[in-house]
Amino acid sequence: MSGPSDIRPGSWRFRLHEIIFEADTRVGKVFDVTLMVLIILSVILVMLESVPSIQERYGDTLWVLEWSVTIFFSLEYIARIISLKKPKHYILSFYGIIDLLSVIPTYLGLVLGGAQSLMVIRTLRLLRIFRVLKLVKFVREASVLGDALKASRHKISVFFLFVLAIDIIAGTVMYLIEPSSAGFTSIPRSIYWAIVTMTTVGYGDIAPVTVLGQLFASLLMIMGYVIIAVPTGIVSAKLSQMPMRSNTQACLNCGKEGHTDDARYCRFCGEDIYPERSDES
Amino acid sequence: MSGPSDIRPGSWRFRLHEIIFEADTRVGKVFDVTLMVLIILSVILVMLESVPSIQERYGDTLWVLEWSVTIFFSLEYIARIISLKKPKHYILSFYGIIDLLSVIPTYLGLVLGGAQSLMVIRTLRLLRIFRVLKLVKFVREASVLGDALKASRHKISVFFLFVLAIDIIAGTVMYLIEPSSAGFTSIPRSIYWAIVTMTTVGYGDIAPVTVLGQLFASLLMIMGYVIIAVPTGIVSAKLSQMPMRSNTQACLNCGKEGHTDDARYCRFCGEDIYPERSDES
Amino acid sequence: MSGPSDIRPGSWRFRLHEIIFEADTRVGKVFDVTLMVLIILSVILVMLESVPSIQERYGDTLWVLEWSVTIFFSLEYIARIISLKKPKHYILSFYGIIDLLSVIPTYLGLVLGGAQSLMVIRTLRLLRIFRVLKLVKFVREASVLGDALKASRHKISVFFLFVLAIDIIAGTVMYLIEPSSAGFTSIPRSIYWAIVTMTTVGYGDIAPVTVLGQLFASLLMIMGYVIIAVPTGIVSAKLSQMPMRSNTQACLNCGKEGHTDDARYCRFCGEDIYPERSDES
Amino acid sequence: MSGPSDIRPGSWRFRLHEIIFEADTRVGKVFDVTLMVLIILSVILVMLESVPSIQERYGDTLWVLEWSVTIFFSLEYIARIISLKKPKHYILSFYGIIDLLSVIPTYLGLVLGGAQSLMVIRTLRLLRIFRVLKLVKFVREASVLGDALKASRHKISVFFLFVLAIDIIAGTVMYLIEPSSAGFTSIPRSIYWAIVTMTTVGYGDIAPVTVLGQLFASLLMIMGYVIIAVPTGIVSAKLSQMPMRSNTQACLNCGKEGHTDDARYCRFCGEDIYPERSDES
Repeated sequence: MSGPSDIRPGSWRFRLHEIIFEADTRVGKVFDVTLMVLIILSVILVMLESVPSIQERYGDTLWVLEWSVTIFFSLEYIARIISLKKPKHYILSFYGIIDLLSVIPTYLGLVLGGAQSLMVIRTLRLLRIFRVLKLVKFVREASVLGDALKASRHKISVFFLFVLAIDIIAGTVMYLIEPSSAGFTSIPRSIYWAIVTMTTVGYGDIAPVTVLGQLFASLLMIMGYVIIAVPTGIVSAKLSQMPMRSNTQACLNCGKEGHTDDARYCRFCGEDIYPERSDES
Repeated sequence: MSGPSDIRPGSWRFRLHEIIFEADTRVGKVFDVTLMVLIILSVILVMLESVPSIQERYGDTLWVLEWSVTIFFSLEYIARIISLKKPKHYILSFYGIIDLLSVIPTYLGLVLGGAQSLMVIRTLRLLRIFRVLKLVKFVREASVLGDALKASRHKISVFFLFVLAIDIIAGTVMYLIEPSSAGFTSIPRSIYWAIVTMTTVGYGDIAPVTVLGQLFASLLMIMGYVIIAVPTGIVSAKLSQMPMRSNTQACLNCGKEGHTDDARYCRFCGEDIYPERSDES
Repeated sequence: MSGPSDIRPGSWRFRLHEIIFEADTRVGKVFDVTLMVLIILSVILVMLESVPSIQERYGDTLWVLEWSVTIFFSLEYIARIISLKKPKHYILSFYGIIDLLSVIPTYLGLVLGGAQSLMVIRTLRLLRIFRVLKLVKFVREASVLGDALKASRHKISVFFLFVLAIDIIAGTVMYLIEPSSAGFTSIPRSIYWAIVTMTTVGYGDIAPVTVLGQLFASLLMIMGYVIIAVPTGIVSAKLSQMPMRSNTQACLNCGKEGHTDDARYCRFCGEDIYPERSDES
Repeated sequence: MSGPSDIRPGSWRFRLHEIIFEADTRVGKVFDVTLMVLIILSVILVMLESVPSIQERYGDTLWVLEWSVTIFFSLEYIARIISLKKPKHYILSFYGIIDLLSVIPTYLGLVLGGAQSLMVIRTLRLLRIFRVLKLVKFVREASVLGDALKASRHKISVFFLFVLAIDIIAGTVMYLIEPSSAGFTSIPRSIYWAIVTMTTVGYGDIAPVTVLGQLFASLLMIMGYVIIAVPTGIVSAKLSQMPMRSNTQACLNCGKEGHTDDARYCRFCGEDIYPERSDES
């Protein structure tokens, strides 16, 4: 994000920048929490509007709340642009586009009327939830989980492909075994069944009726039941290795971190990490 | 819990306190076990009373049993108050309130008659189950599990929020894709479907019927199937680190730690780890 | 199991004992494999007999096969008794009773006719499957798994009780929230629903229909989804510690095993485990 | 696979072999990627052909695409045979047979007409998916997962047998408890239900209706919920041991191992682990 380096310190734009983009000051923290609460409120508003009975009875209240939230987010959007020297970067960024897309629907509704066809556009406001996710993303715990998942992404992708291949084969076999009347009307639909079964979701909207089909389905179920061990094992193994990196001691010589707790010398440059300990031991 | 320090040792109130609050004496243990059995019995009674056919046939027996249990619990409640010097603390504590709330319904039923509307109040008696959980809580194994969960609570909360955010987005997308006739009548209901699907519960009361919806649902299912690895990995990693810390005894000779609980001699230098034990065994 | 110590070596009873109870000789191995195949065959026979269409068409063949298997198992039972000096111990043992119970039904059927009411007794023959489990039990891999489960049994029991308590509370709450028409007709039935939901089985025969019920059910589902991490973590942690014991080096001094791979001195008596290594390192 | 050792280097057959069997050259890589894309395309084609509505509307387009893909695969099959000195080995290999079986159906359709009865043969083309799996198999991540599963295969087999035995017993018990009207019409069908339940799939096509049946089903569910910990623990434990073995470099100074892959200096004594690398970096 482009800094306010060219905006004169002390000016109102500088302070605005501090409030919106930094969480160091008291006002900045209040702004962050207010924003989060309003985002969650606006997400709940979109949900409630989709419920016919609530829309009918509390339509006016929802309308007022929706406009209040939209005006706040519009002002926030303008404030973000003003407080940045080069707002272009923010406007074209992922969160800049989300911020814009989440306020437009309300204004569009004003122009086009509350037509039912606008529903798809209205739900764009739900994109604000990514803002909450962004805030959560910086929580330390989330980053450990994210690191573990990121470090496991190749293994998990391979596993994903493997599951998909099995489901394609299983779906095709079931398409041949089971009659259309049981719901296996096409191969894609049978693959959908195979995924529903192997992931142990099991809706029951499509279920095998022949003996052979049930036998084959049983195999697929037990396979899904046992094979779930693989992603679990991957993430488990990664997470149990993670805490190793929790030592935040940086080498005084080369500055690199990531030493294990029982390390005495930097594994990158060979210097003593704890020179003050040289008397002990 | 306030001690009986001001109650004269040897007095009947002192002995009552010992029986109720301590499990050291023989009578105290008998009291604890009796209490546990009666709590479980009373929980089963509440359950059985809710079954129309049983209520009809064995209503009288249940009534007698219910009153026996209630009177016992009432006496226990009074005894607890008497045996404490400052019973206020107990009365206002979580378990004090539960103890009171779980006997009141039976007496209320006497006053108000066995009206169907009392059902909600009657089930308050089920709160007694927390007493059983409390007893279980002090079992050593439970505390290890509790510690592991407590140590992982931040990570699990983040994961919980992440799952919720995905379910909100997935529910909204499905609300737009699927027709109302398939059960996706509102966003909250679609989110409910997304949770049912992602947690692999899969009731099948709401299930996608369009090709696009089934494709999207498949993605959500596989995601739920793979992502369950995360909480498992978190708790796994925590539990596998737990026992490691269980013995912190360092060898007096070479200073190395990491000995198992059944070790007597240092596995690195061969010295006796517990020289003070040399008299024993 | 009582040995054949008093049966004269070389006698036919001694050889019979060797064939039936030992797997060292070639004939003994052939006997074991034959027995296993016949048990599996007899289990499949019981299954097939329960299918009306198969019973109708292949009833005679099944009858012949059933009698062949029963006669073999009867001879085996008699042979076991003869080949033991003190057969009483075997006759009263778990497997002795199973062996007897699994041949009786066929003879009873002869006396009482193939009445439908005999079905329950006929399925007693399925008990033979425990014999297969017994053979599997001695496989090394099974014993590691068994050890891990046995070592975790306290933790798993506590977890089991915890899940049960949550399900009882959740079931009662749902009984109060949901109308009877949705299937929540009594507390035990609602608890059954809670177990079906929390274990992520999700039949869909009972499913919440109110908004509040669905909200509460969602919480229970996510709880079940996350909490499955606990037993997994327990067994995972145990199994990853297990291989530690794989070092089979016994101390030359005290004879105890169970040393870790990086141990140099016996952790029980302090003696050097590898005296021959004293020159090295 | 028989090498082209006897095919003169530089000849067109030699170059053809390089393109088809090696991925070192640029043309070879392009060939591999083209093949993969076409295989996936052909798999999607088979799926789409099975959807009645798509077959009706886009039948002609699918026909053209199918023939294009088939001709490419036919040419590839011939090219593979030509470029090998001893093609017999390839023709009789697993992938050789799959390659042949996956092109034959289209030609057969030409001879026999597009009869519905050919559907089974047409789906043989899906076998090409094994080619994709083969390419995936050589990815490094897949081999780690494969190794972990292979190393755990005995334990997983034992677990599989154990689950099967429990399901057979549970199915039989439910067959005796539940009436036929609930779907428990035969033992095999009840075992199918037990597998559906224990693996937490839970279709709901067969579900217990009696109190005793629901009680027993609850036990089976919680058992399935807890027991899933076993395969997860097995694979977890294996995977967490796997990466440990990835660096076996011992320090030349102090001889200690256990360095991570990115370590340059010994973390115990500070010496350079790879003195031969001192020229580089």
